Amino acid sequence: MSAFDDLLAYVRTTEALGQIAGRLSWDQETVMPRGAVEQRGEEFAAIESVLHARRVDPKLGDWLAAIDEDSLDDFGRALVRHTRRSYARNTKVPADLAAELARVTSVAQGIWAEARARDDFNHFAPTFEEVVKLRREEAAALKEGTEHADLWDALHQDYEPGSSGAELEAMFGALRPRLVALRDKIMGAAQPKGLTGTFDEDKQMALTGMLAGTFGYDFDHGRIDKAVHPFSSGSGLDTRITTRTNPEDPFNSIYSTIHEVGHACYEQNISRDYLLTPLGAGVSMGVHESQSRIYENQLGRSRAFTEYLFGQMRDTFGDFGIDTAEAFYAAVNRVTPGYIRTEADEVQYNLHVLLRFDLERRIINGSLDIADLPEAWDSRFEADFGVKVDRISNGCLQDVHWPVGLFGYFPTYSLGNVYAGCLHKALRGDIPDLDAQLARGDTSGATGWLKEHLQQYGGLREPRATIFHACGFEPTEAPLLDYLEEKFAGIYGF
Amino acid sequence: MSAFDDLLAYVRTTEALGQIAGRLSWDQETVMPRGAVEQRGEEFAAIESVLHARRVDPKLGDWLAAIDEDSLDDFGRALVRHTRRSYARNTKVPADLAAELARVTSVAQGIWAEARARDDFNHFAPTFEEVVKLRREEAAALKEGTEHADLWDALHQDYEPGSSGAELEAMFGALRPRLVALRDKIMGAAQPKGLTGTFDEDKQMALTGMLAGTFGYDFDHGRIDKAVHPFSSGSGLDTRITTRTNPEDPFNSIYSTIHEVGHACYEQNISRDYLLTPLGAGVSMGVHESQSRIYENQLGRSRAFTEYLFGQMRDTFGDFGIDTAEAFYAAVNRVTPGYIRTEADEVQYNLHVLLRFDLERRIINGSLDIADLPEAWDSRFEADFGVKVDRISNGCLQDVHWPVGLFGYFPTYSLGNVYAGCLHKALRGDIPDLDAQLARGDTSGATGWLKEHLQQYGGLREPRATIFHACGFEPTEAPLLDYLEEKFAGIYGF
Repeated sequence: MSAFDDLLAYVRTTEALGQIAGRLSWDQETVMPRGAVEQRGEEFAAIESVLHARRVDPKLGDWLAAIDEDSLDDFGRALVRHTRRSYARNTKVPADLAAELARVTSVAQGIWAEARARDDFNHFAPTFEEVVKLRREEAAALKEGTEHADLWDALHQDYEPGSSGAELEAMFGALRPRLVALRDKIMGAAQPKGLTGTFDEDKQMALTGMLAGTFGYDFDHGRIDKAVHPFSSGSGLDTRITTRTNPEDPFNSIYSTIHEVGHACYEQNISRDYLLTPLGAGVSMGVHESQSRIYENQLGRSRAFTEYLFGQMRDTFGDFGIDTAEAFYAAVNRVTPGYIRTEADEVQYNLHVLLRFDLERRIINGSLDIADLPEAWDSRFEADFGVKVDRISNGCLQDVHWPVGLFGYFPTYSLGNVYAGCLHKALRGDIPDLDAQLARGDTSGATGWLKEHLQQYGGLREPRATIFHACGFEPTEAPLLDYLEEKFAGIYGF
Repeated sequence: MSAFDDLLAYVRTTEALGQIAGRLSWDQETVMPRGAVEQRGEEFAAIESVLHARRVDPKLGDWLAAIDEDSLDDFGRALVRHTRRSYARNTKVPADLAAELARVTSVAQGIWAEARARDDFNHFAPTFEEVVKLRREEAAALKEGTEHADLWDALHQDYEPGSSGAELEAMFGALRPRLVALRDKIMGAAQPKGLTGTFDEDKQMALTGMLAGTFGYDFDHGRIDKAVHPFSSGSGLDTRITTRTNPEDPFNSIYSTIHEVGHACYEQNISRDYLLTPLGAGVSMGVHESQSRIYENQLGRSRAFTEYLFGQMRDTFGDFGIDTAEAFYAAVNRVTPGYIRTEADEVQYNLHVLLRFDLERRIINGSLDIADLPEAWDSRFEADFGVKVDRISNGCLQDVHWPVGLFGYFPTYSLGNVYAGCLHKALRGDIPDLDAQLARGDTSGATGWLKEHLQQYGGLREPRATIFHACGFEPTEAPLLDYLEEKFAGIYGF
């Protein structure tokens, strides 16, 4: 066996163990008996300790040093690139720091939940400071010996390899003023009618299951269950999703399902040749989000597809108070004021994310103290959304990300939207009759294009290069902005 | 940390990983998408390779050598005993032999299934011989340096530590003639009426779920799902069972569920102090089977409990053609001729097992060639059951055990029945009004007794000592025989 063969065999086993750990999480969120929590914690700790030991095993370093990259094909070079990067990062963080981070973030989640429930920032502030302090220490260790510009960039690499705060700042700087202006115009226009009444939850589940199939989800390699939060889990031949239902809001279930189907189809459609290797999963959070978002928004919330969905809704629920496909399209795409990111529409979502991106860079890079965060949050929110935050649980305590140490992650949501805008432009260019297809509930042209141009490649290329390869042009924010401005001008009539 | 503390921490992690592997099996049998089989195979191989490496890690040998057993309490001494035994066994089998056994038995299962479907012994015979050859090699390695009398005893230890073929032969030698005589008497008597008609499967599931609770199954630490074969899975705080339904035979679902509840309650009721240690699971197959069997038979099929069940059946299904509790009791306990072990009743089941015990000892110890197995099986079957085997799929090809290399396992079924007989005698002595309790559907006296006298101790004592401690007398086959002869004389009126 060559060093490369040894590396490949070792990495495949590690990936298989990673899939098992993911399945345990799925189990916990869907079917686990409630009294099993404590034991499950020990089971997670056991498999994480095995995974960590494998990821820092010096054998990896020996094989990586011995491999002659010139002798490898594209797959081999990509595998080595992924492994080299993760090995370098995993071996940089001292074991005691990693253990302390795991301990503190685990405790922090509970304290944050209490603070949010009580609307009491001070209850969480000392823990928050400890989380930030440890993550800054980790960032310093990760930055050592690299060309990353700052601590935030060092953390960001785990979610979006090759991306930087400076690049994102330029992109988001162009995004923000046009989004704020679009939001202002919408808020000045007459609101379309929304949904009223209640919608049977079993019928919602049947409808979302059908829609998952419509978007190409492969039930032979996946399943849909209910969970508190919708998520997609697993790679390759076993990629499961969850959804939830709300009797008053079938759009929640429908669009969260289509969103998760986008994530899951990406995983399901990666070349089988990459199964259980670092190439066999979505290449970055941003590229992953581009898939979930284009399924959900550019396809699922399009005028054409909502025409089809309107018919399905009437078949499922009978007359539900909206009489035309045009009115249904407007109801699906209503933009209403709100404090909460996870409830935001296509227009406002990125403004929520951009706010977090700017603040978390300052927090991690050391120019914003946690004590000053609420004021910084609230003034930025008022500038972008035109209203004051009414309480801290609607402000900087709303998200679980920072409390559990996720810094460098938020901007991948907006990067995904930007990438989705680019992919949408490119696939419309290749499929002139896309709207006619979508209007009859046929997504195969669009999802087939995404599989062919992007999904099948998994981690073969770097994230930005993955998008470039699919689109044929360098990704920018312009296609997303053009799309949003045109779409909402049509709906709101300005 | 002392050597003992190091050992304990290490073993706990290994046990947690073992629980994860068990959960994967549960997942595969209940909820896994059907297209995930290939990937799941790699996931199993990955976690099994991790488990194997941990179980033969020389660190275990170092700690075991360094521990001063005199300084330990009962828990510590039992933990060391379990670990010493498994470490000694795991390190004796050469890695290439273990790998070859895994490969051959995996392939063998498919060939056996084909041979059984075609009723063609010769199709399986060469593979069967290879399985036996490899298991004999493994047995020789395991026997090396021990006091086991023969190769079969060496294999048997994995299922029933401390037991021997000679001991079992004496016990079963006393069992067989009285069972044959009892069977003959029953076959000469008039048969009671059985069930007819169909029984709604959703109602069966509701009834079995209720009965699981009646027998003390804790749904906070478990769940019931449908699967092709009923089984119990997991230990401690997450112990799940499965069942199946047959519209024409609700007894199948009811009694397989009560059987699995017996297994699962044993696991659930072990002291929390032993969680994720080798003491935290049932101590042997025989003791485990004693719990499933006493729940299913001595309790579940008793005259008293079937009186309660008769009422539940009528409440669930309405009039189903049996009019009295006495007739229902007879229907539950009908003894009918049959070739298949898994379909056998309390009387005939052990005759099926004893046949296998005698034959597999001869196979493993080298005095019965595979080529001669069909004839040996058929002549023994005719001697004990009074009829000729009509085809090989009803004969020595009926069970999956031998094809996958399980030798030394079968007798634990009958040992479990013998132990159940002893426990039943002891608990009846302690609970004079047991029948009155069971007749009103109250099993708490009996199951509480089993928890207090046996289940809570898990692997603290050796298997036979576990039974002795619970009963207060040395286990023998006599209580089981007395119970069966009295019960069936009553039902069949002789």
